[in-house]
Amino acid sequence: MILRDPVHGLVRFTAPHERVVVELLDTPEVQRLRRIRMLGLASLAFPGAEHSRFAHAVGAAHVMKRYLARMAELEGALGSAATIAPEDAEAAMAAALLHDLGHGPLSHTFEALAGPAARHEHWTRRLLERDGPVRAVLDRRGPGFAGRVVGLVFGRHPVAHLARSVSGTFDVDRLDYLLRDAYMTGTRYGLLDVDWLLQSLRLVPRPDGTGGDLAVDDEKGLSAVEGYFLARLSMYRQVYLHKAVRGAEMVLGGLVRRARALGDVPGPPALRAFLAGEPLTCEAYLSLDDGVLATAIAAWAGHDDPILADLSARFRDRRLFKSLPLADDADPEAARAAAADVAQAQGFDPTYYVAVDRVAVHVLEGAELPCVVRGAVRQDLLEASQLLRSLSQRPFVHHRIYMPETVRAAARERIPGVVGG
Amino acid sequence: MILRDPVHGLVRFTAPHERVVVELLDTPEVQRLRRIRMLGLASLAFPGAEHSRFAHAVGAAHVMKRYLARMAELEGALGSAATIAPEDAEAAMAAALLHDLGHGPLSHTFEALAGPAARHEHWTRRLLERDGPVRAVLDRRGPGFAGRVVGLVFGRHPVAHLARSVSGTFDVDRLDYLLRDAYMTGTRYGLLDVDWLLQSLRLVPRPDGTGGDLAVDDEKGLSAVEGYFLARLSMYRQVYLHKAVRGAEMVLGGLVRRARALGDVPGPPALRAFLAGEPLTCEAYLSLDDGVLATAIAAWAGHDDPILADLSARFRDRRLFKSLPLADDADPEAARAAAADVAQAQGFDPTYYVAVDRVAVHVLEGAELPCVVRGAVRQDLLEASQLLRSLSQRPFVHHRIYMPETVRAAARERIPGVVGG
Amino acid sequence: MILRDPVHGLVRFTAPHERVVVELLDTPEVQRLRRIRMLGLASLAFPGAEHSRFAHAVGAAHVMKRYLARMAELEGALGSAATIAPEDAEAAMAAALLHDLGHGPLSHTFEALAGPAARHEHWTRRLLERDGPVRAVLDRRGPGFAGRVVGLVFGRHPVAHLARSVSGTFDVDRLDYLLRDAYMTGTRYGLLDVDWLLQSLRLVPRPDGTGGDLAVDDEKGLSAVEGYFLARLSMYRQVYLHKAVRGAEMVLGGLVRRARALGDVPGPPALRAFLAGEPLTCEAYLSLDDGVLATAIAAWAGHDDPILADLSARFRDRRLFKSLPLADDADPEAARAAAADVAQAQGFDPTYYVAVDRVAVHVLEGAELPCVVRGAVRQDLLEASQLLRSLSQRPFVHHRIYMPETVRAAARERIPGVVGG
Amino acid sequence: MILRDPVHGLVRFTAPHERVVVELLDTPEVQRLRRIRMLGLASLAFPGAEHSRFAHAVGAAHVMKRYLARMAELEGALGSAATIAPEDAEAAMAAALLHDLGHGPLSHTFEALAGPAARHEHWTRRLLERDGPVRAVLDRRGPGFAGRVVGLVFGRHPVAHLARSVSGTFDVDRLDYLLRDAYMTGTRYGLLDVDWLLQSLRLVPRPDGTGGDLAVDDEKGLSAVEGYFLARLSMYRQVYLHKAVRGAEMVLGGLVRRARALGDVPGPPALRAFLAGEPLTCEAYLSLDDGVLATAIAAWAGHDDPILADLSARFRDRRLFKSLPLADDADPEAARAAAADVAQAQGFDPTYYVAVDRVAVHVLEGAELPCVVRGAVRQDLLEASQLLRSLSQRPFVHHRIYMPETVRAAARERIPGVVGG
Repeated sequence: MILRDPVHGLVRFTAPHERVVVELLDTPEVQRLRRIRMLGLASLAFPGAEHSRFAHAVGAAHVMKRYLARMAELEGALGSAATIAPEDAEAAMAAALLHDLGHGPLSHTFEALAGPAARHEHWTRRLLERDGPVRAVLDRRGPGFAGRVVGLVFGRHPVAHLARSVSGTFDVDRLDYLLRDAYMTGTRYGLLDVDWLLQSLRLVPRPDGTGGDLAVDDEKGLSAVEGYFLARLSMYRQVYLHKAVRGAEMVLGGLVRRARALGDVPGPPALRAFLAGEPLTCEAYLSLDDGVLATAIAAWAGHDDPILADLSARFRDRRLFKSLPLADDADPEAARAAAADVAQAQGFDPTYYVAVDRVAVHVLEGAELPCVVRGAVRQDLLEASQLLRSLSQRPFVHHRIYMPETVRAAARERIPGVVGG
Repeated sequence: MILRDPVHGLVRFTAPHERVVVELLDTPEVQRLRRIRMLGLASLAFPGAEHSRFAHAVGAAHVMKRYLARMAELEGALGSAATIAPEDAEAAMAAALLHDLGHGPLSHTFEALAGPAARHEHWTRRLLERDGPVRAVLDRRGPGFAGRVVGLVFGRHPVAHLARSVSGTFDVDRLDYLLRDAYMTGTRYGLLDVDWLLQSLRLVPRPDGTGGDLAVDDEKGLSAVEGYFLARLSMYRQVYLHKAVRGAEMVLGGLVRRARALGDVPGPPALRAFLAGEPLTCEAYLSLDDGVLATAIAAWAGHDDPILADLSARFRDRRLFKSLPLADDADPEAARAAAADVAQAQGFDPTYYVAVDRVAVHVLEGAELPCVVRGAVRQDLLEASQLLRSLSQRPFVHHRIYMPETVRAAARERIPGVVGG
Repeated sequence: MILRDPVHGLVRFTAPHERVVVELLDTPEVQRLRRIRMLGLASLAFPGAEHSRFAHAVGAAHVMKRYLARMAELEGALGSAATIAPEDAEAAMAAALLHDLGHGPLSHTFEALAGPAARHEHWTRRLLERDGPVRAVLDRRGPGFAGRVVGLVFGRHPVAHLARSVSGTFDVDRLDYLLRDAYMTGTRYGLLDVDWLLQSLRLVPRPDGTGGDLAVDDEKGLSAVEGYFLARLSMYRQVYLHKAVRGAEMVLGGLVRRARALGDVPGPPALRAFLAGEPLTCEAYLSLDDGVLATAIAAWAGHDDPILADLSARFRDRRLFKSLPLADDADPEAARAAAADVAQAQGFDPTYYVAVDRVAVHVLEGAELPCVVRGAVRQDLLEASQLLRSLSQRPFVHHRIYMPETVRAAARERIPGVVGG
Repeated sequence: MILRDPVHGLVRFTAPHERVVVELLDTPEVQRLRRIRMLGLASLAFPGAEHSRFAHAVGAAHVMKRYLARMAELEGALGSAATIAPEDAEAAMAAALLHDLGHGPLSHTFEALAGPAARHEHWTRRLLERDGPVRAVLDRRGPGFAGRVVGLVFGRHPVAHLARSVSGTFDVDRLDYLLRDAYMTGTRYGLLDVDWLLQSLRLVPRPDGTGGDLAVDDEKGLSAVEGYFLARLSMYRQVYLHKAVRGAEMVLGGLVRRARALGDVPGPPALRAFLAGEPLTCEAYLSLDDGVLATAIAAWAGHDDPILADLSARFRDRRLFKSLPLADDADPEAARAAAADVAQAQGFDPTYYVAVDRVAVHVLEGAELPCVVRGAVRQDLLEASQLLRSLSQRPFVHHRIYMPETVRAAARERIPGVVGG
């Protein structure tokens, strides 16, 4: 199978161990990802950012292909026997494609609203374990194969660097989404150079013979690694935490809370159960996607409940909440209380119309960091990189309070902790 | 309003005559275009091609802005008084944004299946004339403004070159979609250079003083114009008529015909009326989008009618019809009959499972061609361009017959007119 | 060795059979190519086009690397034993790097002026055969290796498709220069897609077992091949035959003729011998480059001979000849005679100040065309491609007459055969 | 005049105040910049980086054009009378084009070797003040015009933000070269987004009415400004201080010192005077360029003095010095002494064969930083940007010791302060 992709160019899955990707692509579970936008509501602020989880899944599998090729080279250079067996490579390709299988409507956006039972990791696991078309493709590879794929998706594999290749620090998931999201939003000048990054990887042999630890070559790689972390930070600041995007999410949050409070809103049974936090079958979960949610919300705009109707119409017609920036250390409760007073005076129920949004982005978050090698010397990444050391000292904080535009106009001077415009 | 776009980079609507675009963007009619994919089913073959009519509408308005700027320059160079009044410029911006307002689910794909009442031009006109949010924005500009916008959308304006700027030969619609579709499909190396094309435009003064006729400068422009027509041809061959994309459309065509034959299929009333060819209110039409259609088709996969159920499941799970190429002049009826026999023998009703697809693309189609000026000399485009003369001699013909994979396997040797693989 | 290249991105020569490239790069003969601009005088019209033969040589070696990788894949698919032995691959890499070794000052520009003894193929051969650093690197690979490299540079090799890979139809030379020249001139939107082109190649097995014939796959490849020929035509029209670039070459032509007529002009002995058409040693030839020529011309601007001095100053300061377009079939002698009269009347010797430039570009020039395969059916390229058939019917003709600006002003109305502006 | 540029696309100088650029482009002083490479010896490590000062000068003028357009917009928004008069805009265009007029062979490389009399600012001033073709173009604009241009080149103008537009923090010089150098070296993924940067500029009105102070808008601009400084740091680390590039410069340094010590080396008189630090006329200076220097060095490879001959041959054939990294705070004298011992033992005179290279790059170097505005609030850039605050705490230090390869092999273990590989 040969595809063209705006981000990676020619994408080929033609080797024997890549055949599994081709088979998986045609399963209904994977095809469903076409109906789920990668960036949830970000296309409200970035009209080009309409790409789906499906395009990302294909991209992640392509990056895995390149990662495996680089690892094969490095193992050759180590003079060691190859530690990635063909069936491991095949499992890694499948894991890369399937790593986000469980995402629900609007990707992370909705997940955040719907509570722990909606976590995509939970659903990814259930969908991989269930007796369905995806599992059938995996099981055709023999006993143990599906288990190996599940292990890789969740970070477990005897070869250390492979364990982290789907979900780690420089995993194929991130490498694809940072590039793809930058490309599609038009914030294109990222510092992320995947070619250079892969090229700068090294394997430092382990004494126990279980392959090598991933490292980067100082001469070539330090800039590439720093660029990766900077690109990630830049995407958070410019896209993922864009104030208008978060403003849309706050409206959505309000309407989901309201729908839940009302209990019995119209819509497909699966969606109603999902909102109510009731258990869902896999089939029911798979029936949910962006279109189903949007259709339901459009219908709710005519609901009898004025709050659900108003929030749904706002969401549909893009009359989103507006925000004011809060100081990093402002008291969120005090801010909320002040805005709530104004909202109430204007007839808005603050439970649904006022929200404080605080996210702290740690540049090196979750990172099992590679070490840096200069010749034979190994160094911690933070020791080698002055730039990352500087950046890791304090998280980047997004702290804003959201409310309807008229509330903002009246409340601006009264909310404690507001900074700037 | 300042946006970022993967195709055009920074997009700004900040001038007074661009304010209308900002207001229109927030109407529900325009926001609905977010839910309609530009290329219908093409993302089945090109995973990146998930962009919507909305992104294209914004892009078309951006190209109009640049077109107007170039025209202002050229009019200045003519020494004539400007013939594009500010209110014309404003109407042109609105017309560029709204030109596709009436598109229905899957853009052209569904339109082709649903008959004349579904033509997007029809619905664009109705949506512009109806008393709704878009019309309210236009009417705020004063009496006559909405009429001017409708005129421009349908190619009428006293200034000849402006009349063709929304829908003509080098219209803003095509300039955006050729670029955007190439970009998003990853078939990126098009010959289309909008900067150079705009730069190579000239205005040849008309004796009657109604502005000038659009021309291109030989030295600079001939290559640009040729590149434009080649880019268009290339997109037809590589994307719009891609055999797998058409294969999906043939499945969709079968299932729509079946749904219509059954008469009473489940689904939202608007969709059922639409399929039945019954008259629709604007509100009902506006409720239709890609998600509504996909949701209905997914439900039909469980329908009692085995044909509707099978075709719906094929569509959802991407088990599309396969094809064989026919000679340009092959007899479509003979081919269809031969395939129908095989289909019937395998238990497939040929009405829904066999289709011949024939499209002839004329490179210069619909083109009121600009003339070419070399100094003071005017020349017809076809006289000046040997390349276009050669290309215009015969259309490019897409001619294939579609059927289920098993039918193809059995029928391959028996269908008359099949060429090659 | 790992390099970065603006055209190809990451360029790696790390495999054993690529080691020869690394060694050759450091020879003085190859390093000299840094001092020779790829496009001669084109940077006068395209300020960015300052790239050297050296950058192109590296790029051609990179494309060869990718070509060899694709051939290995195709041979694997044929099920045949590999026909490209490791030493052939090594020779091919060397040949790609060295194919232009003999270029002299300003590449093709000067070559055209200096007569047959200056042909770069002649000098490439001499430099490959001479006992110098390049030869030493080749000879270290064993007896016969240098001969194999020379054979490949000049189109001879037992494996047919390899014989044409350095200098043929889709040779690595052209694939690099079409991309690089487009990129550096900023005429970037070429239709050339090397990834897609390589991917669409096929090998059709030969009965005699000497490997396969190169073919393209209809479904994938026809567009790619057509795009390649269109890109080539586009570069000729927009860049290689740009009227200002040719205007500079005509000035250079005049001054070289004058210098030769004067016989004894100052300058390095090698340059003087070269101009006089006297035999040169390889060492003398290697001492010539763009800088040496420019330095000499700058000095000649102060020469006693007024013609040489004037032409040299014009060249240095970019007061180039201007041109008028001639009809394809205009009589060049009649045009020249008319312009010569005016030139003479203004005190310009027509021998040096008037020149007719006629170049006919045949789109498929020199092309041993690949066939097209549709499944098992082979077709001639011209049979399969209506576009190329159309284009091959008549060459694109560049026909202009050049002279100083004042002569053009006075002669414009008097030269027979002038068309347009 | 309309040009194409690989970096900026279409470049147009067609407005009345841009006419001066077109006239200046044809002067011999500006044309000479074609013969001087922008990045000196960097093309040794980055084969694509062969662009000249001329291409950069055109690019800087283009960025100035865009800067002036943005300023006109901002002044309009201030409601103030325009403070950039047409003749100021014209002078600014000329200054942008001419800002590097005085660069000598290999740009900064040679300048650093040749002492204070070779500083390009010195020669830019002399060339602008001298009675030559450039001055003639400027003087045709009326008395005082040339003075205004000189003022702008050296940072003086009554309008504060214009004074810094040629040479300041976000000056047109840097904006072009950061983009161009990144593009041509193939280290393309810079964070520099000129569109966004210009768009995020603001003018904060001054009480005294002399226009406004340049600021950036927090919401839009902070990322853009940070990206600019990161791009600059990245170019220093990856390109300007690349160890192989500096290795070439060290060889050149040695041979220049040796040539000076010998006193009377062959070569053009201007070059000999330049090397000897003797005063030069403008005409003599203008005769120097990369080609002249390279020609001389090639000749010196046959010189009687073995040191000059060896270093010249090394330079020509790219047998450059190799290096070892030193700790930031290593004692350079101790390192040099240790390497000198080994060099001497191998027969190399350390004066010419051993060099310590230490450069400290301060991220915010020389920056009169813009303030950041959040609504009505002004903030210092370092206060607003945690990222820049972190980065400004310590300079990035390049510290290496250079010597011939054989010396490095023997000295590696003996040089104090060496870190890593």
